[in-house]
Amino acid sequence: MKVTYCGICHSDLHQIRNDWRGSVFPMVPGHEVVGVVKEVGSEVDDFKVGQLIGVGCMVHSCHSCESCDNGLEQFCPKVVWTYNSVDTDGTPTYGGYSGELVCNRKFVLRMPENLPPDAAAPLLCAGITVYSPMKHFGMTEKGKSFGLVGLGGLGHMAVKFAKAFGLKVTIFSTSPAKEKEARGILGADEFILSTDKEKMKAAEKTIDYIIDTVSAVHTLDDYLALLKTNGKIILVGVPESPLQLSPTSVIFGRRFVGGSLIGGVAETQEMLDFCGKNNITCMIEKIPMSYVNTAMERLQKNDVKYRFVIDIENTLTSE
Amino acid sequence: MKVTYCGICHSDLHQIRNDWRGSVFPMVPGHEVVGVVKEVGSEVDDFKVGQLIGVGCMVHSCHSCESCDNGLEQFCPKVVWTYNSVDTDGTPTYGGYSGELVCNRKFVLRMPENLPPDAAAPLLCAGITVYSPMKHFGMTEKGKSFGLVGLGGLGHMAVKFAKAFGLKVTIFSTSPAKEKEARGILGADEFILSTDKEKMKAAEKTIDYIIDTVSAVHTLDDYLALLKTNGKIILVGVPESPLQLSPTSVIFGRRFVGGSLIGGVAETQEMLDFCGKNNITCMIEKIPMSYVNTAMERLQKNDVKYRFVIDIENTLTSE
Repeated sequence: MKVTYCGICHSDLHQIRNDWRGSVFPMVPGHEVVGVVKEVGSEVDDFKVGQLIGVGCMVHSCHSCESCDNGLEQFCPKVVWTYNSVDTDGTPTYGGYSGELVCNRKFVLRMPENLPPDAAAPLLCAGITVYSPMKHFGMTEKGKSFGLVGLGGLGHMAVKFAKAFGLKVTIFSTSPAKEKEARGILGADEFILSTDKEKMKAAEKTIDYIIDTVSAVHTLDDYLALLKTNGKIILVGVPESPLQLSPTSVIFGRRFVGGSLIGGVAETQEMLDFCGKNNITCMIEKIPMSYVNTAMERLQKNDVKYRFVIDIENTLTSE
Repeated sequence: MKVTYCGICHSDLHQIRNDWRGSVFPMVPGHEVVGVVKEVGSEVDDFKVGQLIGVGCMVHSCHSCESCDNGLEQFCPKVVWTYNSVDTDGTPTYGGYSGELVCNRKFVLRMPENLPPDAAAPLLCAGITVYSPMKHFGMTEKGKSFGLVGLGGLGHMAVKFAKAFGLKVTIFSTSPAKEKEARGILGADEFILSTDKEKMKAAEKTIDYIIDTVSAVHTLDDYLALLKTNGKIILVGVPESPLQLSPTSVIFGRRFVGGSLIGGVAETQEMLDFCGKNNITCMIEKIPMSYVNTAMERLQKNDVKYRFVIDIENTLTSE
């Protein structure tokens, strides 16, 4: 594929800094890759040259384990990630901050033709990361009350999906500055500062489902208290230290705390089709390739609304 | 009702010691109460004098809130517990360590006639406490792998239900002395000492569902590591301090940690009927009323297999 756009995921920052260990250099990050088919193999009949496609976090899996059988390639023990991973031929994989990418067709997604490809790129990671748990854990019942903790790249997508599912959305955030946009542009029904103890107290037992995207260490019990009976909170952010969980927070109210990691290939395609149908894209700041290092610095300070996307096609040079 | 038998629940010990604060004295503990109908009100036509009945943890709820509507009376904000609670008339409630008990018929259960009433008494709390989450959280699929953490009053009932559902049962325990009985009498398929790091490592990713009954502080991550993709662990014990939960333990594998509190009235009846049909009772040590204080001391040391039941009818005297 010829790469046209690539989103910058927060995990790219972790990988280039070797925060999670195991980083291998030289590294080409990027797993929110959009572009057009340049060439197809002789046995590929489901993609055509010139077609708009995407590649997300994975490029290979074994196709014979229980996870693969269940469409959960992300949990396959032999999964090959799009970059900083080892391909089946033993060579390193390189990601989408690049002019071209070669990928097995089983991991290639059809991008909806009606969406702007730059704003659709982050769907391939940020989008599926919140869509998948909302579907799997049953957070889609119209009229139910949805809480979002942490309004960033993942969080703003969760709000968009929640609105599309017909949920009543409350955003819990530590940033008063985000309220206007959260209500106005994103259409959140409520915005509560999580530092406001009185409002947090008043919101107890009012929420059916929560997606928690926060990657800083925080107290689960505070958010569990917001949940009604049978409420659920799903973690998609990865704080560096364990969180504290009081068993009574789940026992009284029959609640649960789950986790979720991106989504399988078929579900990612389902999410893309859903976004096409409902006109859902990410809010992005489009940048030239030369701005990448500055973007990384800003990302570290959470200074982006809500995703950087690199204009690869028009700004990547060979110099 | 004339009380014939009453089980001793571990929570009775907490209540008489005021461990959870809020204890009111004088107190009559006991919420695993079995007996026979002595008298019925003029509008009661579903129970007959002489019928074998049971009363569990609750004796009243509002019948008009969302929890009551959903058969979850245990989460009704106005629930009245069987003892150490305040009844609708403002008087304290007294439990089943007593010759008689008066209870609204909505909270009276039909005991299966084919089960010995002494060994069936603990079903009313220990039984429903593990049956309810196993049903609600879908831990009943024949052939799946079930793990039980903590083999005590609740735990041995979970093993019996798991076997009845057709699950493969592995018991995780800190007591080597429990292995023979666990395999022989309870029919567990595997018994793993949770202190044996090698065996715990080998058991990783092999279990579908876990019921965790342990009320001592312990590490959730160790048990989450045992779960396959989509695995779940349900907490029914109440440790005094929060537990540590690493988000990666739930994110990688899309697992969840839930909690559950007894069960509603209709589900408790369903559980009793299931036990009647499948001949499920508790393993008990029957004691006279005069032995209660000694029993409490032994209970504190976990020295009981697996539930004390007081022979109220034959040993309660008015002296």
